Amino acid sequence: MTSEDLYPVSRLAAAQEATAKAGLDALLLTPGPDLRYVSGYEALPLERLTCLVVPASGEAYMMVPRLELAAAQASPASRLGVEFVPWGETDDPYAAVAARLGGAAKVGLADRMWAMASLRFRDAMPGTEQVLAGTVLRELRMRKSPAEVAALREAGAAIDAVHRQVPGFLRPGRTEREVGRDIAEAILSAGHHSVDFVIVGSGPNAASPHHEVSDRVIQAGEPIVVDIGGQLHNGYCSDSTRNYCIGEPPAEYTRYFEVLRRAQDAACAAVRPGVSCESIDAAAREVIAEAGYGEHFIHRTGHGIGIETHEEPYIVAGNDEPMEPGFAFSVEPGIYLAGRHGARIEDILVCTDGGGERLNNTTRDLVVV
Amino acid sequence: MTSEDLYPVSRLAAAQEATAKAGLDALLLTPGPDLRYVSGYEALPLERLTCLVVPASGEAYMMVPRLELAAAQASPASRLGVEFVPWGETDDPYAAVAARLGGAAKVGLADRMWAMASLRFRDAMPGTEQVLAGTVLRELRMRKSPAEVAALREAGAAIDAVHRQVPGFLRPGRTEREVGRDIAEAILSAGHHSVDFVIVGSGPNAASPHHEVSDRVIQAGEPIVVDIGGQLHNGYCSDSTRNYCIGEPPAEYTRYFEVLRRAQDAACAAVRPGVSCESIDAAAREVIAEAGYGEHFIHRTGHGIGIETHEEPYIVAGNDEPMEPGFAFSVEPGIYLAGRHGARIEDILVCTDGGGERLNNTTRDLVVV
Repeated sequence: MTSEDLYPVSRLAAAQEATAKAGLDALLLTPGPDLRYVSGYEALPLERLTCLVVPASGEAYMMVPRLELAAAQASPASRLGVEFVPWGETDDPYAAVAARLGGAAKVGLADRMWAMASLRFRDAMPGTEQVLAGTVLRELRMRKSPAEVAALREAGAAIDAVHRQVPGFLRPGRTEREVGRDIAEAILSAGHHSVDFVIVGSGPNAASPHHEVSDRVIQAGEPIVVDIGGQLHNGYCSDSTRNYCIGEPPAEYTRYFEVLRRAQDAACAAVRPGVSCESIDAAAREVIAEAGYGEHFIHRTGHGIGIETHEEPYIVAGNDEPMEPGFAFSVEPGIYLAGRHGARIEDILVCTDGGGERLNNTTRDLVVV
Repeated sequence: MTSEDLYPVSRLAAAQEATAKAGLDALLLTPGPDLRYVSGYEALPLERLTCLVVPASGEAYMMVPRLELAAAQASPASRLGVEFVPWGETDDPYAAVAARLGGAAKVGLADRMWAMASLRFRDAMPGTEQVLAGTVLRELRMRKSPAEVAALREAGAAIDAVHRQVPGFLRPGRTEREVGRDIAEAILSAGHHSVDFVIVGSGPNAASPHHEVSDRVIQAGEPIVVDIGGQLHNGYCSDSTRNYCIGEPPAEYTRYFEVLRRAQDAACAAVRPGVSCESIDAAAREVIAEAGYGEHFIHRTGHGIGIETHEEPYIVAGNDEPMEPGFAFSVEPGIYLAGRHGARIEDILVCTDGGGERLNNTTRDLVVV
């Protein structure tokens, strides 16, 4: 895939059209996923304002610190043919945007715009209502193009290759942090540009879903949750969770792990165009609740994924958004026995015309090392 | 240095006092440097709200997604003795904060709070004015404690160790990206937790201050700007720029490089308590302008540094903030001949009672490889 496949210049026109349709005057896109999605430009988030201004109609332009002008011109954003408006160290770029936008009634801010910028835009445009650009861009970003699906498939294969190496890292006497360091190196060697997170939760730490690593020495007979992900150079992200144990796990663990396996399969099987996001959450939750572990499944079933690890659509109760082909998201139910142990199984799926395609394909069974 | 030295629990009371003094009702600190500074907690920035609420008076508390409760409790934030308020996947944590804050007139948002959160706080507290927490915290964060200065000194030594290895990476026929990859590995090996940026600008790319790396093959006789930095595990950052050349550089480069050396020395020599930040910028600018290169010095002279690579105080025209002992910042004038070549020399300095102490100590001369 070329950058042009993943970040086609047609995105800008699509974003403008969606902006107009949503009744916004413009999107203000500072560095982060929204800017990258529309322009392909992976700008560093810094205190100096870089901002692609996408008006509902008329020409888009990009405010750029003068000293980053050459970098911006060398970036994929130059393909858009938009004007670059450089500003100097003692200029006020917020006032400049305000002057050009005139009396805009409503603008959409990049979802990750820092308060440092959003409050200055607010002050520079006191009569203008601020909403999230995500309300406009989510409609585009949720529907992955074939090239985006291919990039996510590549990311899935890369993180699968790391999971295949994990048993070799799990030697008795090592700490979670030591294992995590090996995994981080493997994530980079497998073709990722960056390591986004490495969770190695052993024993009681496996019962804390967002535990990362600690200096705890992993003991034999302790289930281990390994939840890992990174970002490819092309911007697309991986995320997969598997479960390991040095030696045989406790009997109770084996009982609920089987429940979890069925729950994750049930949720994956529920994926098809037209069903609601929350129904996929319900499919997993039902299996777990019926087996009596409902109170131990303490988080939503999944999150969308693309150029962010967590993005729309969220697979959670209350989200009645209907699935469409091209939606990409995690299915990752978990069962956690606080203070003791826990398990989570996670695949990335993409919704196709025929159902859900799993992009992670290593064994979902407990791997006994 | 222990975490307790760098992030003392007394910070919370200091932040509360500063909040009261500034006439704010509370600070709302989401994951990022402001939260870490006050609590020591390095939380992942995610779409689920984590927020330390620091009221001007009364007890602080932290909203935490239920699935991150264990991680938060295991973090340095637990030393603060604040209440952790967990929220579930279908709760509205913004409404919960609004209810607890009652009719707050003015709150300070973490400078890097995402619009995703700031706009939801705005909607949940329509009568409450939002300002930047930085207006309160800058007064604390700018004045580094002896432990913080020690951490910055450690960061300086770590990046100096990398610069000493750079000549070995600069072999003819290699691209900027290849050299950059070696540098990134060396940054991690030197004790950094993460690589923040790697700029390897050769030939014309040296004239673009925020160029990162490219597939350009570095040629003999081309000056190379190497500007690199990372973050230590303890949160403190390094940042240093040096200049290299494979073989002898062009004669004109040699002429202006000597000017740049004098300008950087003049700015460093100007550092002492009581002088304004802009006077340090002026000290560098004057030398460069007198030599006829004024229009080629296209950025400010420096930025503060601490747990962010760029933070206050900025060494820039218009900033009349007087220097105080404990201020830490870069001094990095540059001369850039667009399309041809350029140079920048950067040290981190800390202001002491007696003047400026440089925390970077590799040679500032051009290194001919």
